[in-house]
Amino acid sequence: MRQCSDAQVIIHEVGPRDGLQAVAEVYPTQGKLEWIRAEVDAGVKLIQVGSFVPPKLLPQMADSRQVVQESKKIEGLTISALVPNQKGAENALDAGADVLSFVLSASEEHNQRNVRCTIAESLERFSKIIELRNSEPRFRDVILSGGISTAFGCTVAGQVQESQVLGIVEKYLSLGADRINVADTVGFANPAQVKRVFTNVLSLTGPGIQVGAHFHDTRGLGLSNAFAAYEAGVREFDGCLGGLGGCPYAPGATGNVVTEDMVFMFESMGLNTGVNFEKLMKARDIMAQHLTNEPIHGTLARAGLPKDFEQRPSYV
Amino acid sequence: MRQCSDAQVIIHEVGPRDGLQAVAEVYPTQGKLEWIRAEVDAGVKLIQVGSFVPPKLLPQMADSRQVVQESKKIEGLTISALVPNQKGAENALDAGADVLSFVLSASEEHNQRNVRCTIAESLERFSKIIELRNSEPRFRDVILSGGISTAFGCTVAGQVQESQVLGIVEKYLSLGADRINVADTVGFANPAQVKRVFTNVLSLTGPGIQVGAHFHDTRGLGLSNAFAAYEAGVREFDGCLGGLGGCPYAPGATGNVVTEDMVFMFESMGLNTGVNFEKLMKARDIMAQHLTNEPIHGTLARAGLPKDFEQRPSYV
Repeated sequence: MRQCSDAQVIIHEVGPRDGLQAVAEVYPTQGKLEWIRAEVDAGVKLIQVGSFVPPKLLPQMADSRQVVQESKKIEGLTISALVPNQKGAENALDAGADVLSFVLSASEEHNQRNVRCTIAESLERFSKIIELRNSEPRFRDVILSGGISTAFGCTVAGQVQESQVLGIVEKYLSLGADRINVADTVGFANPAQVKRVFTNVLSLTGPGIQVGAHFHDTRGLGLSNAFAAYEAGVREFDGCLGGLGGCPYAPGATGNVVTEDMVFMFESMGLNTGVNFEKLMKARDIMAQHLTNEPIHGTLARAGLPKDFEQRPSYV
Repeated sequence: MRQCSDAQVIIHEVGPRDGLQAVAEVYPTQGKLEWIRAEVDAGVKLIQVGSFVPPKLLPQMADSRQVVQESKKIEGLTISALVPNQKGAENALDAGADVLSFVLSASEEHNQRNVRCTIAESLERFSKIIELRNSEPRFRDVILSGGISTAFGCTVAGQVQESQVLGIVEKYLSLGADRINVADTVGFANPAQVKRVFTNVLSLTGPGIQVGAHFHDTRGLGLSNAFAAYEAGVREFDGCLGGLGGCPYAPGATGNVVTEDMVFMFESMGLNTGVNFEKLMKARDIMAQHLTNEPIHGTLARAGLPKDFEQRPSYV
């Protein structure tokens, strides 16, 4: 995985997972791979390619094993995969994922609906996954990320206490999580809250643990929240090409932050995402060609780059 | 005009001017007044109701005198009006505007296209307007705002130097401007630049001069930029209900920041805008009823308020 300095920002594309999981029409496996290849070619090197959930629950993700296996052939790609439990983790490890993104919700109610257990049980599952990873030398380099959904509010429970989020971060760290991802799953977060929460999360994790941020643009604040998290010190951001996505258990939570708009924001701030805009727009077209009924979002695609915008020469 | 504390943010609705000036179909005068009344009722107390430009150039603004005069009857409203020159200022003062928003561009090229003179000539015009205001006791309380368009980049000239913007602010202050408004007319700004520019602008103006920020959402960064300006210390923000607008001389510069989404951002941050969401949504409907071919933007209108969102009791 790329390391980042202060001038770098890592984009974690989650479209093939979070974007597609909200799409009813099953997206072809080869189409997912074309999308992933095109985005890696554009410079997005960390991609969540699938979710190891029961195929009956999410037919869209039934090919995740195959997608991970095929993605292994793509040079320079770090493959992340979502896992909600031990079974999913076993499958993801076996398929060859580089990063396992474990997920639980800060809201008990949402956790029950999403993964059908309590938060304590989810943490127990995570602990088992850590053991599993540690038990086999071939899994030694696999990164285990502790994710916290609905960290800024919940469509079921309403407000979520910050102390609840920080408590889960502490638990994750004590269990041995390599990374933390804090998510506004349903688009409730505001930038002041985001800056406060991530400042506190980063004070718990310290410099050794990468902290990622995941925002939805449900109420237009996705990029404001990304900027606020950046201000707090976050350097890894989830996004989805074309702003696909949502949460099947969170009505109204439409759309991840648009990857290309977020890349534009950070690059225009003088930061280095490693992404080439022209190629990213091609990847967007490739992604869209297999979607017939989905709205594809994004303002950059409509407006284009500003006049005299300085694309970093190394990526042109 | 309302004064603001650290916990307050002033929303300056510019839709009846900046929004409508991009709309070809002439909006009825009574419709403008209904819109303005509805928005004042929702708690937006500072509204730019028109523009005193030659009617031949902007037929949409030909009724600005009448709109200002009728708006005088709306209790609690502070009426601002855009003026590009002395003639416009005379008419706006005579009609009874409370705030004259003078406009020039940080880019010479844009200034030529927009107001057909050099920046130095624009500043000379502003100086004459100050004299005019000071010359008559009945104009004593009129506030003269010095606006700087294309302060963050220009569709014609490309990049705009920060020193250019700061130089114009200094000029405005030396001429006696009561307020400063810095605008990303064409949607080129990024939040890092915005925070830096406004920090420097505010260090020039000091506490006695209100500084306003004006953003477009052309590339999705409107609210991020508003948050960045807030972080720098700005407490007054231009917005447009439904995100109408653009600039007739800046192709692609579509859409002001959506007022209702910006109100949501600031209120969700715990700040006080004085605005009631339900009534603001009614004002949005009233605004939209006279527009047949215009896209009405905004994510809050689509997604609604988050569960358990705390609307300030005093405004419910």
